[in-house]
Amino acid sequence: MLSLKSERIPRATIRRLAVYVQVLESMQRNGVEVISSGPLAEACDVNASQVRKDLAYFGEFGVRGVGYNVASLIAAIKASLGVDREWRAALIGVGNLGRALLHHAEFKARGFNIVGAFDCDPFKIGEQVYGLEVTCTSDLKSAVDAKGIEIGIITTPPERAQRAADHLVEAGVCGILNFAGARIHVPEKVVVEYVDFFHYLYALAFSITGSEHRSK
Amino acid sequence: MLSLKSERIPRATIRRLAVYVQVLESMQRNGVEVISSGPLAEACDVNASQVRKDLAYFGEFGVRGVGYNVASLIAAIKASLGVDREWRAALIGVGNLGRALLHHAEFKARGFNIVGAFDCDPFKIGEQVYGLEVTCTSDLKSAVDAKGIEIGIITTPPERAQRAADHLVEAGVCGILNFAGARIHVPEKVVVEYVDFFHYLYALAFSITGSEHRSK
Repeated sequence: MLSLKSERIPRATIRRLAVYVQVLESMQRNGVEVISSGPLAEACDVNASQVRKDLAYFGEFGVRGVGYNVASLIAAIKASLGVDREWRAALIGVGNLGRALLHHAEFKARGFNIVGAFDCDPFKIGEQVYGLEVTCTSDLKSAVDAKGIEIGIITTPPERAQRAADHLVEAGVCGILNFAGARIHVPEKVVVEYVDFFHYLYALAFSITGSEHRSK
Repeated sequence: MLSLKSERIPRATIRRLAVYVQVLESMQRNGVEVISSGPLAEACDVNASQVRKDLAYFGEFGVRGVGYNVASLIAAIKASLGVDREWRAALIGVGNLGRALLHHAEFKARGFNIVGAFDCDPFKIGEQVYGLEVTCTSDLKSAVDAKGIEIGIITTPPERAQRAADHLVEAGVCGILNFAGARIHVPEKVVVEYVDFFHYLYALAFSITGSEHRSK
């Protein structure tokens, strides 16, 4: 399904595609079977020509004058992004944020199944957290091999992020989602995504300051 | 400090500026006083010409052949983004993620002070969470007025996000950081930022799938 064309999907498009999937799945739950680009754009807060342009990456899923078949469009977007399958993940750092993510029902529902929870704190090891037993990080590699884990999620304090990343690389994961407030260094073959809450807060503060400034 | 020039800072630049601040503050804690664009770029995983280009938005903080004064550069970036002051926030939805954010020491350290925690669950109201008493969402407006709250953080389940947003708009906040997996609709004057974990997971899955495909 992955075409040469889809290998060039720009980052901003991926961000919007994630929104389309979220909104389309919500519409599907509400019984919507067919949607045209206008209402889809409005629900996603994106302009309609942008929606049509983004969906052009996926070939033709729309019927002129009728709209897109919701189920087919969801399936096509997911297939092109490589999220039409299960991805197994291990989480390192069972603190407050780690627990919140382990409890987040949507991860599994969206195909990202956290099947291992790791920590180096002896007081946490052995604890059951939402059905998973917290395991010592030194056992990560055997879990990755045994459970087919491809993704690592880092929710440690910033100063332990690099060590967690080293463990994950050593264990052979292909990609890392890093929630810790620190940059990590990994071999080029390992993909890293940073979830930095502060970039959103900075953008928010900047927009508010800017709009107050402009309205004066 | 906010100039017309800075009002046009593109979104991708803001994202990198947040990374620069994070890395520069970490360097500052380690005693670094002056840094040139090369090592800064390497620590941030951005190329050096991009760093110089981004920092050009802030006028001249570098000295040729010497580098940037770390403290001045942090201050200048923060001032231009409007984060050189305290922002007060109210959080709605004291579930697992809400608790994790309330506990997140870095929010206050970075100038975003969560001074109110709200929920509509009668079993949570009155509970103390990390020093804040959980308050009924119907009391939001008086808290916003009394405490000078400008930002709302939504950590409710998706189906309650719009109601939380309505409460925040009614209470008069200027901006909303939405962690709930749902789009919200607010008047144009209110700024919204969405923190969507799945966009990062989708990007990760897409990159892994693409790189496996390319290496075949």
